Amino acid sequence: MSLFVQKFGGTSVASIQHIENVARRIIATRDSGHDVVVVVSAMGKETDRLFSLAQEVGDLGSATKREMDVLLSTGEQVTIALLAMMLKKLGAPAASFTGSQAGIATDRSHTKARILKIDKERLLNTIKAGVVPVVAGFQGMDDEGNITTLGRGGSDTTAVALAAILNADECQIYTDVDGVFTTDPRVVSTARCLERVTFEEMLELASLGSRVLHTRSVEFASKYKVPLRVLSSFSDKPGTLITEEDDAMEQPIISGIAFTPDEAKLTMRGVRDIPGIASRILGPISEANIEVDMIVQNVSADGSTDFTFTVRRDDYDQAISLLENVARDVEALEVNGDNNIAKLSLVGVGMRSHAGVASRMFRVLSDENINIQMISTSEIKISVVIEEKYLELAVRALHSAFELGTESAVEVKG
Amino acid sequence: MSLFVQKFGGTSVASIQHIENVARRIIATRDSGHDVVVVVSAMGKETDRLFSLAQEVGDLGSATKREMDVLLSTGEQVTIALLAMMLKKLGAPAASFTGSQAGIATDRSHTKARILKIDKERLLNTIKAGVVPVVAGFQGMDDEGNITTLGRGGSDTTAVALAAILNADECQIYTDVDGVFTTDPRVVSTARCLERVTFEEMLELASLGSRVLHTRSVEFASKYKVPLRVLSSFSDKPGTLITEEDDAMEQPIISGIAFTPDEAKLTMRGVRDIPGIASRILGPISEANIEVDMIVQNVSADGSTDFTFTVRRDDYDQAISLLENVARDVEALEVNGDNNIAKLSLVGVGMRSHAGVASRMFRVLSDENINIQMISTSEIKISVVIEEKYLELAVRALHSAFELGTESAVEVKG
Repeated sequence: MSLFVQKFGGTSVASIQHIENVARRIIATRDSGHDVVVVVSAMGKETDRLFSLAQEVGDLGSATKREMDVLLSTGEQVTIALLAMMLKKLGAPAASFTGSQAGIATDRSHTKARILKIDKERLLNTIKAGVVPVVAGFQGMDDEGNITTLGRGGSDTTAVALAAILNADECQIYTDVDGVFTTDPRVVSTARCLERVTFEEMLELASLGSRVLHTRSVEFASKYKVPLRVLSSFSDKPGTLITEEDDAMEQPIISGIAFTPDEAKLTMRGVRDIPGIASRILGPISEANIEVDMIVQNVSADGSTDFTFTVRRDDYDQAISLLENVARDVEALEVNGDNNIAKLSLVGVGMRSHAGVASRMFRVLSDENINIQMISTSEIKISVVIEEKYLELAVRALHSAFELGTESAVEVKG
Repeated sequence: MSLFVQKFGGTSVASIQHIENVARRIIATRDSGHDVVVVVSAMGKETDRLFSLAQEVGDLGSATKREMDVLLSTGEQVTIALLAMMLKKLGAPAASFTGSQAGIATDRSHTKARILKIDKERLLNTIKAGVVPVVAGFQGMDDEGNITTLGRGGSDTTAVALAAILNADECQIYTDVDGVFTTDPRVVSTARCLERVTFEEMLELASLGSRVLHTRSVEFASKYKVPLRVLSSFSDKPGTLITEEDDAMEQPIISGIAFTPDEAKLTMRGVRDIPGIASRILGPISEANIEVDMIVQNVSADGSTDFTFTVRRDDYDQAISLLENVARDVEALEVNGDNNIAKLSLVGVGMRSHAGVASRMFRVLSDENINIQMISTSEIKISVVIEEKYLELAVRALHSAFELGTESAVEVKG
């Protein structure tokens, strides 16, 4: 007998009919002799509806974050009640629990709280009594009894945290896609659903996986070694298992190709290569809450260097004007940028033990006449920046060259 | 400086625009130098929407009452968050509290829980800090940490209970009508809004007041001597104050005329007049959850009597067939009924000290050729049953004869 935490996202519980399907899935797991703890999100567009009510009130500063949490947490509360009712109607004992009732204690950071500890007594007693606990994802309570929410992807985090504390055999994240793919199937028709990826790969595949799993929940699962499975609540496919790296198993060299369109790059040329210069450049950017993605700085020549980084395209205009101020301060030669680029990454733990992946990647792009503007590598990832109009061509060419597609899935060669 | 508990019902908070109006009203009270504790209901039709989601799940037995409370309590939770946001936006410090956060402890009777005690510390500290507490009406928490709801009119009960425990100067129930009227203004155009009624009168005027105030909250206010004011959130009229009877003040003889259409009467004729017979007759009726209103039994002749009572018209068919079974058991002569009647009541504490009200009432009806089928009286009420088609005529004639209308409101003579 195993214990599974099963988490169902908003699209999986979008209507009463959907909730009935979810209930039947939970009951099927129970009928196979397993215990289940359920975590759910708000129904379909409910969070959007609540959020737009708040927008209608208007002028939402940090002063109203506490109330935003009170508001948004009702979304999941509606789902737990309806799903518990449905389970009972279909003959399975069930009881709903809000975040606070499930013993989920967080810090006081409203709208982006972190789980501090979970008092598992009530859930354990519920499971022991043969009752299915249906827990509201995304929410908890701080030490003063205020309702908190965990921010984006919070329901996944709730599920993983419960799986960790309850020592569950698997945390199953049900969603509206079949799992994690080698790349976006909308771009490459032969994209294949991966049976298995490592936590590290999943984190590097963030741009693919973010539609499926929030980075934070993957980090959490990795830290507490909780096997995560991403699968569809609309099919019976096994989905993708995300686990620790297993030495006994041959790792494919490349697991997938992640990409991000809508990026922009900024370069400060002729920067004096002295300690502290990077933080002087990026300080004002991060203070403006602009997220910096790739950062590349080459070796200096004549004591000066070029410093390049990428941001989301939406942030480009603000970033470039901030950077021009900095350039005057640090006496850089010039600032220039390009808001017409995209990032593309090959990801795979097998890369560690296989040489030549990078050169092969560059050759494939060169064969397609695609110029590489920036390169950045980690142990299990090679990222390049290219002109955006070549992005789909590049993804398709690499997907084919590294034989990631459905047809060649059986034998991946190095 | 006074402390007011202000309760706003569903129609008063039906939209963000409504919520803004409510917030301005609260701020105006604060600006007059008073402290305010706010209690709110769910927005407009929100409770109906939630209830219909539960209906869609279907087959709601007592087994799902706990989940029904989890579901319905989200309605008020949405309102407290939005109103607290709005108050802050308009410059008034505010904080929302769910029933449990406000310290409202109830018994375990899901969907119709009773308040057992209120831990007022958190609210008192909030008021002391100059912050407006915005409390979710209708809900509490039992001793096991489960969410409970108080049933119909529950938000009024929350407001009155908070006013009692906080020793508030007045509990103000804002609604969509101007107050308690001498009778239904839709039936009598000259119906007048009462400045003041006693708790007793308000309870007897239930059929008028139920649109405004639930009986339970009036009983509660009466028990704890909380002055209640019913007023409109859509006007600046003073509304109706409901208080204890004040000896120093001249009481009007008649405060109002209550009536209930859609009633039915049932009579068991030739019942042996022996102890226990009434409970043998009414036992099966109450076991079937049929509410009995008037009960009349006249003195017996020859050891046998006639027993008559009224029920809601919807319950008539079931009641008559139950009664026919009882009639066989108790060897009554016959059962007959009439599902085409209405009840009408004159209510007024002044009746106690003024003779002749009943005879005057009967003369007015007789002058209109209206036959009185049943009569029942209490200290401050005279109720009659008449054929339904005469109901509006009777109400208008009595309203005029007892000079309850707007024109003659200045001097009411005995």
